[in-house]
Amino acid sequence: MTSLADTFSALLEQKKYAAIRDVLVTMNAADIESIFEDLPAETLPFYFRLLPKELAAETFVEMDPEEQEMLIKGFSDSELSEVLSELYADDAADLVEEMPANVVKRILKQADPDLRAAINELLKYPEDSAGSIMTTEMVTLRPQMTVAEAIKRIRRVGFDKETVYNCYITDDARHLIGTITIRTLILAEEDSLVRDLMNTNVISVTTLEDQEATAEALAKYDFTALPVVDGENRLVGIVTVDDAIDVIKEEATEDMERMAAILPSDKPYLRTAAWDIWSKRIPWLLLLMISATFTSMILSTFENALAAQGALLLFIPMLMDTGGNSGGQASVTVIRGLSLGEVEPADVLAVIWKETRVSLLCGISLAVVCFGKVLLVDRMLMHNPEVTVTVALVVCLTMILTILVAKLIGCTLPLLAKKIGLDPAVCASPFITTIVDALSLLIYFAIASTLLHL
Amino acid sequence: MTSLADTFSALLEQKKYAAIRDVLVTMNAADIESIFEDLPAETLPFYFRLLPKELAAETFVEMDPEEQEMLIKGFSDSELSEVLSELYADDAADLVEEMPANVVKRILKQADPDLRAAINELLKYPEDSAGSIMTTEMVTLRPQMTVAEAIKRIRRVGFDKETVYNCYITDDARHLIGTITIRTLILAEEDSLVRDLMNTNVISVTTLEDQEATAEALAKYDFTALPVVDGENRLVGIVTVDDAIDVIKEEATEDMERMAAILPSDKPYLRTAAWDIWSKRIPWLLLLMISATFTSMILSTFENALAAQGALLLFIPMLMDTGGNSGGQASVTVIRGLSLGEVEPADVLAVIWKETRVSLLCGISLAVVCFGKVLLVDRMLMHNPEVTVTVALVVCLTMILTILVAKLIGCTLPLLAKKIGLDPAVCASPFITTIVDALSLLIYFAIASTLLHL
Repeated sequence: MTSLADTFSALLEQKKYAAIRDVLVTMNAADIESIFEDLPAETLPFYFRLLPKELAAETFVEMDPEEQEMLIKGFSDSELSEVLSELYADDAADLVEEMPANVVKRILKQADPDLRAAINELLKYPEDSAGSIMTTEMVTLRPQMTVAEAIKRIRRVGFDKETVYNCYITDDARHLIGTITIRTLILAEEDSLVRDLMNTNVISVTTLEDQEATAEALAKYDFTALPVVDGENRLVGIVTVDDAIDVIKEEATEDMERMAAILPSDKPYLRTAAWDIWSKRIPWLLLLMISATFTSMILSTFENALAAQGALLLFIPMLMDTGGNSGGQASVTVIRGLSLGEVEPADVLAVIWKETRVSLLCGISLAVVCFGKVLLVDRMLMHNPEVTVTVALVVCLTMILTILVAKLIGCTLPLLAKKIGLDPAVCASPFITTIVDALSLLIYFAIASTLLHL
Repeated sequence: MTSLADTFSALLEQKKYAAIRDVLVTMNAADIESIFEDLPAETLPFYFRLLPKELAAETFVEMDPEEQEMLIKGFSDSELSEVLSELYADDAADLVEEMPANVVKRILKQADPDLRAAINELLKYPEDSAGSIMTTEMVTLRPQMTVAEAIKRIRRVGFDKETVYNCYITDDARHLIGTITIRTLILAEEDSLVRDLMNTNVISVTTLEDQEATAEALAKYDFTALPVVDGENRLVGIVTVDDAIDVIKEEATEDMERMAAILPSDKPYLRTAAWDIWSKRIPWLLLLMISATFTSMILSTFENALAAQGALLLFIPMLMDTGGNSGGQASVTVIRGLSLGEVEPADVLAVIWKETRVSLLCGISLAVVCFGKVLLVDRMLMHNPEVTVTVALVVCLTMILTILVAKLIGCTLPLLAKKIGLDPAVCASPFITTIVDALSLLIYFAIASTLLHL
């Protein structure tokens, strides 16, 4: 199968630049970037120069930092300046954050003063804040304008703005006092006043608001853009829905990574060096391995009991895994509920009550099956006379109690973490498993000592 | 602290309806719904009747199916018909899907013929398809229109459309031939032709496309709406960005649930009955418990070895957990990479090579720490002379090999699942753990037999 990348390579070799350009202009920036990934890196500048200005800038924004850096290094000063002039301020600020110092210097030198000021403005906000993901380009209107004047202003300034669908109304001191959509303007009489049409119930966030909360607010109200204000309610920027979607996906990835005992990383997996991946995975592995020392201690205490009743040993992994899985189920349910806003730390009693019932249901049904399985498979099929009915009973009682304890720990730890300001996602399966391992052993030996008189 | 819900209850008791209405109209539908949740259910119809028509419909859409059903039961026929007339077709179809049969009958009876036709149209698409999440209300233009005519048409029909920012251009046979944004229209000369301004490189999905792929496409191209066409490229609807965000969040939740060995559910946790939660959690718990039989068999085979070298027993949980955690890290990384489109089944060799290096790094660093820990804590601190240097060596070699095997299984199983059309998310930690448990024991006893001459 011939890919588009192959076609481009062939066309470039034959110097059919017009043909390449004709194909490129029919495509979207995201698709062009996908093809660029498959082309030899050294030929990218040739293709890039064939793109019309706006499409070139859009494609540039879609690229990885490595590709961007390479392209910039190949640009003349005037080419760089041309691309920069087409970038939105938030994309330019993202670019500056990713590039090494010498490239940043060139970028700031070639950016026009307005863009340079906007970049510097955006860079001063903390990482993961609303300020860091907003753009400073938006359409502002005044309350005393008529609809005709407003549309005229949008026509004049609108070309440079990332989103022209939402306009923001500010007073003389730049305070945000209302919002209006292009839709409202276009559907209204030309001589109506913006003041009478604008929505004064403005939902906004401050520059220091967490980016996740910002994206959630945008999603909650079904907005396509959310205004960002400073401490004095002065409009400083907007967060657009495409950036909010990126934040939502990024935060879901981070939660999944934390749940799997990985420190969050922000690079695509295949482009991350093995050392970097190692550095994100080793801390939790190390901590969890050392915590397993408690399990060893418990096992060592009960070594004699195990020697007397060797059959008990066979069921330790099953009990531990079932405990870990049960606890993991409860913790992930609560962690996701917290992050979707469906569960709050104040719901702790309702959660405990629900998990108590669920764990008894799970525990009893598993225990019944387990009882049959132990006697049928482990005793009869495997011909192990040590596996007595009493042993099966010990295993099944341990299972019910372990599941109860595991689910209660699994559901309360994330709530506690949230309450004291930690990320609940770290209280997922691996962490719970380590605790439940030790507890399930204690329960097992306590029940065994009683029923088997060890 | 007095909540808004308390204030409303007090106002309702004093029959200050005007005051309640004045407060409600300053609020957003999403916020009103939050307050409704805290109010006594039987009083909701009173508040609801105070809302202006459009805000009432918006609030209604935000509610849970239980609340909606209760409200509808309290509505007169004319009230129901009024709310329905304000709903978008996709929201009305969602409502019909959630309600019991007798309520559906009333809804369809009170819906006007156009809405009824649109609902029936939407309901015929399979669950989780683009057709099932699209709305049939959008602005269509013709290529021969001038900008002035187009804006006039939008003014005339636009009030009822869910999104008026993107307009779609169709030919005589309703084939989708172009798109244009209000932005382009408003910035253009009034007598230009739509044909000359429209974007003809149309990205669309078919009605049967998976909803996740649809949402991903919308996010990839930074659209606020994506057109949906039938098998003959005739425009039948659009998916809007707010619905795409819901899909993205829903799919992330499902992935997390599957990773935690839970069958996906679509109800908020606190409103799901214990029995329902049990039914989503018990299948995997049962399957994983029974799979643990292999682990028992392996342990039983090596019972004599363990009796001869009791110290070996102490490290089994630590080795199993470290294996499970390592495998879980690799599998979650790959599963998320697959779902974000960063990794594909074709990358299997690159993934294996990367995980081989990462697992050797992780294995060797953990083994070094483990060696010190075993001799220091388990031998010296715990006064256990059975824990010899050779035992420590066996444990550490097992650890390196277990991590290698666990990470390789963890990274390849999700790729394999994807390749054969299964959901990769089920190949996460719990599943991997069960396999790695058995393998780590085999590795452990093989190394122990060799080095300790058992």
